Amino acid sequence: MNEQVLLKKIIKLAKKSGKIMLNADRSNLNINDKEGHGNFVTKYDKMVQDAIFDGLKKILPEANFVGEEETEHAKITDGYTFIVDPIDGTTNFINDYKLSSISIGLLKDKEPFLGVVYNPYLKEIFYAVKGHGAFCNGKQIHVSDKALEDSIVMFGTAIYYEELFEETMETAKNYLSHATDLRRSGSAAIDLCNVAAGRADAFFELRLCPWDYCAGSLIIQEAGGVCVGLDKQPLTFDKKQGVLAANKLENLL
Amino acid sequence: MNEQVLLKKIIKLAKKSGKIMLNADRSNLNINDKEGHGNFVTKYDKMVQDAIFDGLKKILPEANFVGEEETEHAKITDGYTFIVDPIDGTTNFINDYKLSSISIGLLKDKEPFLGVVYNPYLKEIFYAVKGHGAFCNGKQIHVSDKALEDSIVMFGTAIYYEELFEETMETAKNYLSHATDLRRSGSAAIDLCNVAAGRADAFFELRLCPWDYCAGSLIIQEAGGVCVGLDKQPLTFDKKQGVLAANKLENLL
Repeated sequence: MNEQVLLKKIIKLAKKSGKIMLNADRSNLNINDKEGHGNFVTKYDKMVQDAIFDGLKKILPEANFVGEEETEHAKITDGYTFIVDPIDGTTNFINDYKLSSISIGLLKDKEPFLGVVYNPYLKEIFYAVKGHGAFCNGKQIHVSDKALEDSIVMFGTAIYYEELFEETMETAKNYLSHATDLRRSGSAAIDLCNVAAGRADAFFELRLCPWDYCAGSLIIQEAGGVCVGLDKQPLTFDKKQGVLAANKLENLL
Repeated sequence: MNEQVLLKKIIKLAKKSGKIMLNADRSNLNINDKEGHGNFVTKYDKMVQDAIFDGLKKILPEANFVGEEETEHAKITDGYTFIVDPIDGTTNFINDYKLSSISIGLLKDKEPFLGVVYNPYLKEIFYAVKGHGAFCNGKQIHVSDKALEDSIVMFGTAIYYEELFEETMETAKNYLSHATDLRRSGSAAIDLCNVAAGRADAFFELRLCPWDYCAGSLIIQEAGGVCVGLDKQPLTFDKKQGVLAANKLENLL
């Protein structure tokens, strides 16, 4: 399939699935605990994932699928693999904080090939196809050219990984002592898109899952920025790992 | 004037002034430094303030006016005093981060009497009149009933007060060790409204100006929550001070 046709179909699917989030019956979210304190899932995470998987299977039936809300995850192999977070920012969603997103990444032969992130609250869709630039609502986006001292640094706290708490706060302090300000939104996918759009300038989180960063990392790279592991090596998409992102490599601490 | 008529007029003015933010020519923000690193003002802060002051002077001509973008501030006396932040979250506004608000507080005999906070990006207007409850877009809002261990805590970093940096991060760590998660948005007025609406559960910032919290503090109190100084005593509106807010008093650290 032509990649622009594929992209358009996935964008349409993301926007349609976003309506499930906006129209959720907030009196009946059916909240359940997952592993660890503060790690939740709602029936809407599953509903949105089902809607996206059903749609993607029609769009690209030969692909494999990895989604946050599955109990067992497919292995990443050659060919196409979708990596999906149906609601990135579930805690925000539960609390009606209005800062969550749908993240759909597509790997081709284990490398990011296409990424779509949709924020239904602001009706903003971010997307990129490998080699073709990054866009938000039809306009091309670019990372900022700010120096670290003028940067806004976003971070994730991943409170359910209690063992990372001290290091996260120390890293945040370290960034803040070099930069202008901190932000903590609760949706890594939106944070990565904000780096891509030059709205903020750097991001770190000490442990994320591939569905959190698969789409966003491509969008940043196509916007001219960097998105790598904690060791500053290329990200992989087969395991949890720390993620650093910035407008330029020299701004990563 | 009937207080509901007054409220309606101020809500209309806030929404109209929000359009100036949304329609800003982002290639010509005319950014200037104020006191301290990372403390900015744009020509739009002044334009929005002028639009609000002009409107408020027609609505309640006998009031005094205090606005962030004035060089000298009126003293708080008996009678009516408007306390206005034309763009709360100026750094976000400059970066098109889409998380800023207009905050209009009204004191009567030095005590909060009316508060309106408008987020033009989500088209959400929060408001309260003393003794009549708090509302968002026509629906009454209430703080959450969460315990601290289940709370989301928001905080301000106020990076241009470098002397507060260590204490801010220590306080954030302390809250995070007792709560579920942290948020840092960049607009104190929106954070206070999010406590009021039960979307998050606590907030602290070690130094704020009265225009940052005048409206939001009343909205929290009318939503059943608490908003006080660092000493847990009632806020005043005549000087900078630290602000604590929560759904309930026992959740303040």
